[in-house]
Formats: sequence, C-alpha cells, structure tokens
Amino acid sequence: MAVSGEGKASRVFVKNLGRDVLCAASKTFLDCLREAGISIRADCGGIGECGKCRIVVEKGVASPLTDSEKRVLGSEDISKGFRLACQAKVVDGDYIVSVPHESLVQRYASADIGFERAVPLNPLVKKVFVSVNPASLTDVTADLDRILDELSKKTLAGDYDVDVHAARIAPEALRSGNWSVTVVLWRNKVLSIEPGDTTNSIYGIAVDIGTSKIVAHLVDLVKGETIAVESMPNPQASYGADIISRIAYASRDREGLEKLQKLVVSAINMLIEKMSLRANVDRNRIYEVVVAGNTAMHHIFLGINPRYLGTSPYVPAVRRGVYLYAKEIGVNINERGIVYALPVVAGYVGSDALADAVAVGLRDCDAPCLLVDIGTNSEILFNTGREILACSTPAGPAFEGATIEFGMRAVVGAIDQVFIYFDRSIGDYNVRYNVVGNAKPIGICGSAMIDLIANLYRNNLIDYRGRFREDIKTKRIVVDNGKKKFVVAWSHETGVGRSITVSGKDINEFLLAKAAVASGINILLKHANISANDLQKIFIAGSFGTHINIENAMAIGLLPKADARKFVFVGNTAISGAKMALKSSEIRREFEDLAKSIRYIELSAHPLFKQEFVQALYLPRQR
Amino acid sequence: MAVSGEGKASRVFVKNLGRDVLCAASKTFLDCLREAGISIRADCGGIGECGKCRIVVEKGVASPLTDSEKRVLGSEDISKGFRLACQAKVVDGDYIVSVPHESLVQRYASADIGFERAVPLNPLVKKVFVSVNPASLTDVTADLDRILDELSKKTLAGDYDVDVHAARIAPEALRSGNWSVTVVLWRNKVLSIEPGDTTNSIYGIAVDIGTSKIVAHLVDLVKGETIAVESMPNPQASYGADIISRIAYASRDREGLEKLQKLVVSAINMLIEKMSLRANVDRNRIYEVVVAGNTAMHHIFLGINPRYLGTSPYVPAVRRGVYLYAKEIGVNINERGIVYALPVVAGYVGSDALADAVAVGLRDCDAPCLLVDIGTNSEILFNTGREILACSTPAGPAFEGATIEFGMRAVVGAIDQVFIYFDRSIGDYNVRYNVVGNAKPIGICGSAMIDLIANLYRNNLIDYRGRFREDIKTKRIVVDNGKKKFVVAWSHETGVGRSITVSGKDINEFLLAKAAVASGINILLKHANISANDLQKIFIAGSFGTHINIENAMAIGLLPKADARKFVFVGNTAISGAKMALKSSEIRREFEDLAKSIRYIELSAHPLFKQEFVQALYLPRQR
Repeated sequence: MAVSGEGKASRVFVKNLGRDVLCAASKTFLDCLREAGISIRADCGGIGECGKCRIVVEKGVASPLTDSEKRVLGSEDISKGFRLACQAKVVDGDYIVSVPHESLVQRYASADIGFERAVPLNPLVKKVFVSVNPASLTDVTADLDRILDELSKKTLAGDYDVDVHAARIAPEALRSGNWSVTVVLWRNKVLSIEPGDTTNSIYGIAVDIGTSKIVAHLVDLVKGETIAVESMPNPQASYGADIISRIAYASRDREGLEKLQKLVVSAINMLIEKMSLRANVDRNRIYEVVVAGNTAMHHIFLGINPRYLGTSPYVPAVRRGVYLYAKEIGVNINERGIVYALPVVAGYVGSDALADAVAVGLRDCDAPCLLVDIGTNSEILFNTGREILACSTPAGPAFEGATIEFGMRAVVGAIDQVFIYFDRSIGDYNVRYNVVGNAKPIGICGSAMIDLIANLYRNNLIDYRGRFREDIKTKRIVVDNGKKKFVVAWSHETGVGRSITVSGKDINEFLLAKAAVASGINILLKHANISANDLQKIFIAGSFGTHINIENAMAIGLLPKADARKFVFVGNTAISGAKMALKSSEIRREFEDLAKSIRYIELSAHPLFKQEFVQALYLPRQR
Repeated sequence: MAVSGEGKASRVFVKNLGRDVLCAASKTFLDCLREAGISIRADCGGIGECGKCRIVVEKGVASPLTDSEKRVLGSEDISKGFRLACQAKVVDGDYIVSVPHESLVQRYASADIGFERAVPLNPLVKKVFVSVNPASLTDVTADLDRILDELSKKTLAGDYDVDVHAARIAPEALRSGNWSVTVVLWRNKVLSIEPGDTTNSIYGIAVDIGTSKIVAHLVDLVKGETIAVESMPNPQASYGADIISRIAYASRDREGLEKLQKLVVSAINMLIEKMSLRANVDRNRIYEVVVAGNTAMHHIFLGINPRYLGTSPYVPAVRRGVYLYAKEIGVNINERGIVYALPVVAGYVGSDALADAVAVGLRDCDAPCLLVDIGTNSEILFNTGREILACSTPAGPAFEGATIEFGMRAVVGAIDQVFIYFDRSIGDYNVRYNVVGNAKPIGICGSAMIDLIANLYRNNLIDYRGRFREDIKTKRIVVDNGKKKFVVAWSHETGVGRSITVSGKDINEFLLAKAAVASGINILLKHANISANDLQKIFIAGSFGTHINIENAMAIGLLPKADARKFVFVGNTAISGAKMALKSSEIRREFEDLAKSIRYIELSAHPLFKQEFVQALYLPRQR
C-alpha cells in the first residue's frame, strides 16, 4: 500500500488493477495514482484539455465536475461516471475507481527491455554430468571415449561432434574431477568437459547490436532468468552516425571492416564484463552469445564485408543463422563458447526486426496484424493471415531530429511531448510541453514533432499539406526572414536564449519521413488487399515507437487509423527475441523458418510506390 | 625386353611372370634375371649354399649341374627340373623357366610405400559446381543462401553445416565467378566456396608420423592417384630418440609439447611444400590431411599432452578419430582445410598399427591371420576368426642396434644380411655378408643379427640358449677378454680397423628383444587357443620387417614356425592405410569400427606373460 501525501488519507481501490492506494485529500486522482506507480496518460500535461486521463469513479464522492470535464467528456460519458483524473480530486472516505486500458501508459520505461513471449526453457547449450570407472590395466578405454560412452548411455544419443579440443582437455578433467566430469554440449557438438558437477551453472548472453546502441542481457540458462541488463552507445558511431556511412567505411578496405568489428566486439566485451561482475558469474560459465542486429551491424560484427548491402539490389551475404567460436572474433566468454548470429530477412530487414516478430508472436496472429519498428530505417512486418510480408523504408534521419531546425535526439533538454490548445484565459493558442530530464528546453525530438504537427493540424493552424493557414491569427505564429514559424517555447522559457520554433520547412521534412513509413505500411496493406480496419493488432516496437503518441501518430498519418486499443507498445523486442532464441532451440527454428518464409517486398521496385508515397506526404482528412 | 650383357643373347621366357628376358651366354640365371628387375632371393650371396634361388628350367639346355646343386637340391628336386639360379648358366638357344613364389623377393624397395587394398574412391572432401541466377531487385535472396538452395537441389541433401566463413566468402566468390561457384564440402560441412568450376581439382595428403621417420603421400582425389611421395627423418629425434623420452619431454610443460608439435608440423609442411611443387599442385587445392602414427606421435601432433601414456595403465586421451582445422595447428593447406587424425587402439597400439590392419584387410581374413609390425615397439594384431586381438611389446632398441657391441641402424656401412657355411675349400666356417650402400662394413644391423643367430644355431656354433658351444673348433670364434666372440668380418675387410664380431652378450641382448615379440605372438595365439599351423597368413609390416629373412626369423623363434608362403611382406602399410582412409569414407568407418572392436591385451597384466617370456628367451628346437 502506497501512501500519497501527508495528512488525512483516503483509500482508493483501483478495481481493474487490483491495487489499493492511499491518497491525501485534495490531491487529483492523476497525481496520487501516478505517485503510486500507476502510469496514467495526460497528453496535455494535466490541464483538462486532452481527455486522455479518463477514469470511472464507481464508489465514493470526488470533487465536483469542472468546466473542462463537461466540455471534454460530453454528457454521455459523464452519465457513465467518467471523470478526468487530472481534474477530479479526492475529498474524503474510500473510493473505488477503474482505469480504462486506453488511459494507461503501457510502455517500457527502459529501451533496454521489451515484451517477451514465455517459452519453455530448452537452450542449445546443455550439460550432462557423467561419472565413469577409473582406467585400469584391465580397462584401458581412452579418456575421452570413456566419457562419451557413458554420455551416450545417459542421453541415448550417440552421434556427437567431437573435435580435437575435447581430447586435449579430457585427461585432466577426468583426473581432477576424480573420474566425474560435466560434458558441455552445443547441439550435438561437445564444447567442453569440466571436472566435477557443474550442471547448475550455464549462462548465456543475448545482444542487440543497434546502429546507435548496444543492449545485452545475461541469462541464467538453468533457471531461465535474466540476471543482468546493460547497454551502451555503439562506439562505431565515431566512424559514421548512420548505416550507410558505416557500410562505406567497412567496405573501403580490410582494415576498415576489422576496425569497426573490433569496436563492436570490445563494446560487447565491456557489457559482458559489467554484467558478469554485477551478477557474480564466472565468464567461463557463459557458453553462448545470441546476437540480433540490423543486417549491416550483423555483417560487420561477423567480419562479413557489407559492401553489397550498399548497392542495388542490396542483398545480404547470408540470410540463415550462422555460428562461430566466440574466440575467433575475440568475444570473451568460455574459450570454446559459441557466437550465434540470428538470421536476417533482407539487406534492410535484419535479425532485429525478425526478433521483434518472434518476440510478439507475429506468426501466430489469428487475424491480420502489423509490426512497425520506426527509426531512421523503419521495418514493417505484416502477417496478412496467409503469409508474412516485410519491407523496409529509409525514412531518413528526420525522426532523430536531423534536417529539422531545432531537431535533436530524445536526450536531456529535448521537448518530447507537446500539447497545443486554445487557452480561453489569454484568448490565444497556448502550448504545454514536456522536457526530458526536467531541464530548460533546447530542442525538439521526433515524438514531439508528431505531437506538434498533429496539434497544429487539429487546431487548424496548418492545412493538409502542412502549410500554415493564412486565415488564423495567433501570436504563436511569427515571421522570420519571410517564413512563418510556430513558437513552441518562448525564448525566456528555453535554454538557448531564443524561441524554439517549428517552420513550414521543418514540417515538410518531417512529413517526408512520415510518408516513407506510411507508404510502406499502405503498400503492404494494399499488396495483401487488406484494410487498416481489418488489423487485429499493431505492434509498435523499438525505442522511438515507445515514446510516440499513438493518436497523434494516427492523426498525421504516420500510423494507419485504427482503434487505439489495437496498438501494443512492445519496447525493445530485438533483445527479447534474441533472448528467447538463447533460451529455446524451438524459437531458433522459428527464426530460421520465418527468415526463409517471410516475403520481402522491395518498395522502390513496387508498382504502387510512387503513387503511395506522394499521397502519404499529405495529412489525412480529419474526422 | 631387357638385354643382359653383351655378345650373343638367349631369350629366357619366365613363364609364371609372363616376362621375356634377353641373357648373354655364360651368365648365371640369377644375374640375368636380377638385371631384368626380377628379384630372386640368394641369402648366401649366390655361392650355391643357401638353396633359396631355386628355379625350374622347363625348356632349353643350361650349364651342367654343379656339386653344390647336387648337395643342396637333392635328387627329388633335381628330377623335377629344379636348378639353383646362382649356379645354372645360360648356354645357347631359348629357355622357358619358372620362378617359384618362394624364390622371389617380395618386398617393397622403399620404406615409404606399402601394400594397399583397392578401394572405391569416395573421399570426405567433395566438390559441387553450382550455377545460380544473379541477384536482382525482384530476387534478393542472400548470396550464401542462394548458393546453398541450389546446392541442396543438386545434391538432394539439405542439412549442411555452415559456419560464418562461408558467409564471408560467398559474395566475392559469386561475383568473381559470374554467379557460378564450386562448393567444397567435408562431410556435410561447407568448407569453402570457390569462384567458377574447380571440381577437377581436389587434393589430399596422407601422413605417417613415425618416431624416427615421417612419410607423406599427395593424392589426386578426383582420379584417386598418388602423385607424389616424400619422407624425412622426424626432427623431434633431437629431443629423444625413442617414444618414452619424447613423452617425457612433451609432458614436462606446455612449451615442451608445443615445441615437439611445431617440429612435426613444420616437417609435414616441408613435405607438403616439396610434393606440391613437384606435382605442380596449388596448396589451396589440398583440403584434407589424414594422419596415422603411434599414439604418442598422434597425441603430440594434435597438441594433446601425452603424459598418461607414460604411466600405468597407459591410456590414450582419445581413441576415436578427431579432426581440427589445419590452420589451428599451422598445417599449410587450404586455409579451411581439415586435419583428420585416424583413431588409435591403445596407448601403444596407434593408428599406424590400425592402418596396417586396414591396408591388408585383416578384418576380412577367412581364417586366422596375424599381422606383426616389428620395431622398438612391436605391434601384433591377430584376427582369430571371431575377433581381433592386439598387443604391443616393448622390444627395446636391440633391433635398432642399441645394446649390441657392433649394432647399428640399417644405414650405409651396416651389414644387413649374413650367411655362415662350412667352406670345404678352407676346412672351416666362412661368412658371406651384404653391406648397405656397397661400403666397407662398420657394424651390424638388426636383420643381420637375425641371420647371424639363425646361422650360428643352424651350424651348431651356439646352443639353444645362444651360448657358444665348447666342442666346436673354428678360427671364427675368438676369445677377447675371456669372452668368446664370433668374427663376422675380419679387420682387413672392415671400415673400422678391427674385426666386426658378435659376442654371447650381444646374442643374449638380441634374444631378450626377440622374446618380447615372440611371447606377444604366443600369448595372443594361446589366448585364442589357436596354433601357428592354423594361421592362414602372417603379414609382416613396417620397415624393419621388410628386411628380415623369414626362415631365419622363424629359426630363432622371432616369428612362429609356418609355411614360408604364408608370410606376406606388406611394407609401410601405415601410410597405405592412411591413404585409403583419405580416399574413402567407408574405410574411415572401418577404422572407427576396428578401433572400437579390437580387443587390446595388456601383456604385462596377462597371466601367461612370465612363463611365455622366459620360454621365448630360448632358441626353438631345430627340425
């Protein structure tokens, strides 16, 4: 039970979540529920304008309805007991409330984790404890064969792949283990032989190599539990911020590839080091690293020249999953440990996108469902009900702030949420915004750009082409060098000494990026002759997607119009999918099957491409 | 047709060999047949004493019978047309002769080759030529998968083991081969992908790592032909002449093992270099090296610490065949080439002995048959008809001349054959000997020791215990420091300025070694309750065995008494067996099966050992 505030406290029971919360009198329900860890939406920042924080007060008497509530909720919802959590205050006595699904923020707080289907634990690395009779003059069976004979008896399997390493270590393992050893298997390959019984100690690592960030999870493969999570920026960034420049660098010569490979390997080694220290795990007991990443990161990590990813027709060197000894590329785990790189789908649909699909169970959707991972390069996977289609759209860096005057990434000082409303108290449009890290704003990140454009459009400040309307008078639209700009934050509010604005050109750049994603989604839908209404679920994967406002994304046409409840934020499912593969050989089979069966659609070669792209440049008609 | 000598020539047709030979008149049949390359035995050196060079003159008139012939052949053989080839001379006209099997020397001239059963060509390394459609925007299948899909179509096999290397090389191979490549497979493992069609170029190497000598053969695995043979002394010799000292050196520390391993690897690399230069073969087209050797050599070559071979119960680290990438230990073939070490049977029955058994087809004998590889360490394998038994006898270095006063290896200057007879012309015993390399004698090698002891015994100069008899008077027995010695070569004949002699102690040392081998054979025979008479064949393998005189070896009891025709000299079958395994995966299976099924008998632990060894110290009763 959480206590919110001081003084007299009321008990608020959130029925549909089964949670009891203590609330100080005169606090809003929004504040006290949030303080108890229940994340309730409030796009406008809690000023009674957006209507996203609706709750139902089923029992107990709250403060009277405010004017905002009357305007925003409408009489029908009011009659059903709906209130705005940001307006309704606790008065006295006990309450029973329910928070509708759509009022909850269902996002992953950290970009290092994601949704993960439960899978039965069946890793490729297995250990078998074997106890044998000591060698004697009347039983001179060779050490390794003595072990393997007993192993076969125990497992009822025989055809183990044994290379010379096992022979090198068997004699000492047997004798220092007093004729009892643990055989470490990877598939049917004998990886190692350890003295004594070490069967309770099997660890593995899942890694997602992103262009800008590397995330790693350390997993106890006996218990199936994640015991450490770490991430760090991809150090390759100093050799190119985006995939294309990395490909160019790595393709130039052998040294370029080796340099980028070493950078990512040493980063992964740092993450392994940190996690194993924190979880107190001996690195020699980590036997496998399963890696997801976009195809360029995948190639560079494996020492495969990514040259042909950079030129049409953009084919990868390999689609299927490949393995190698960790030692071969210097990954610091058990000296016989394996690195397994998950399969990719195409040159720009990597194993990270495939991991997204596997993590959410895209293959098993009952009805058509869509998965979108928005970024500089956005991947779209679409289970049509008959097959899975995939495409990739080069949205460009607008989502990350490049090409936008005040654009920036979602780091401290970035405005990441915006709400525009007509403020009756001043008789003009006003803006509420949220800043990452509670700092003075210094720029605008992609999620705020979505909010901005959606809000400008909703308030009729821009037209369907994204141009400022001539007929609207507001102090927020200023003219700078003959160009109109909308003031998001006045200079006195910002950390940059001048107003933070968004121009017609900024909006246009952003709409180009949005058109890339939207046209990709539309082409896949049309290709399968399925309308957005028929979609059962729309999974939003990845860091950027996790932070966008779905209604606003729909309003600008970035995402197809659908019931908001169909959208599911799944977070970093690239790492979740990799972790599932680490834990389950069946999942690995699913990866291979999917990689092979997914139909890749090359958008630039699709007959609908031009038409769809041009159409997607516009903002959709409003309800 | 070979012409022998000058002047008038007779035509001699050797019926049973189908050979026509031209012989000058007045030459002996021995000389002219030998000059035509037909190796006829003459243990006494061609003085009409030993009776080994018997031939039958079926047509034509040769020189009259000599006294020697009358004495040695006996009337029955004479009536059948037998002559001694060293006595009978060509006179005039044409001849038809036949040379009985037992009169022919059936030995391998070089210790680098041996008997080899014919096997169907089915190497583990295979190549498949694959031609694919070029990648395009409408067919973006990944390079490696494009190749493997087509490969599977062609071979109707699917489950290839593909590691990251194939992915690294596929893109360039495809493009420089204009979308046609050759896939190199080792079992189901994709070793490499080469541009264009290289299917007519597959080479492999067989190696026998002996304690004192390394032999290698280069084989064209498309045609199944041996195209080069090379050998060199094992450079490890400077770290110990025998196995035990090598084991000690390699067990001392990691550096010791690495040093010995590097020595043998660089020796093998030299042999590979020489052979590939001579046969004009690109080393990148050599994909596999199959290695045989005694267990200690096997372990050291593979980087396995041989420590436990040196102490009871002498178990190897591994029995089964093991593989590794040639690159891992620095063997210079294709960078993805494989080194496959054939399985061993026991600590002192290595893959060389197993290769002997495979090469001669020991498993497929219809009746009991024996294989003996005599050396410092002698291996005996015995197919009893129900199972194959194996043992190893540490004969010690006497066969190689150590512990014998004038003992030496069979190098230039060594007396390698000896014949003792009562010379009527001088009224005393006389000696004929052969010297390796036509030099003045400087010592006696093992094969001559066998001849010496057998001849001394046959002529009643020594008794069944190997002691000089008191009752015999001959100038050949001299007394030196109170010890009797038999003069093999008088000082004026030798290259050492004094007489070369053999003492009672020398004989005794040699009999100890012979007892080790003989008791091993006898224990195996008794273990299976089979008498020497029941043996169908006795294979004599290895360099030392190839040079011994079978009758003499039987006379001293080194080999069991049997019809001389049952003995088959098979030469260096260690290399032949390795070569068969290189050429045939079925043979490799036979190796594995045999290694597993052969019953190893530890002689020192056998209940019959003491009794048999003591008995074998004596010379057997003469006929």
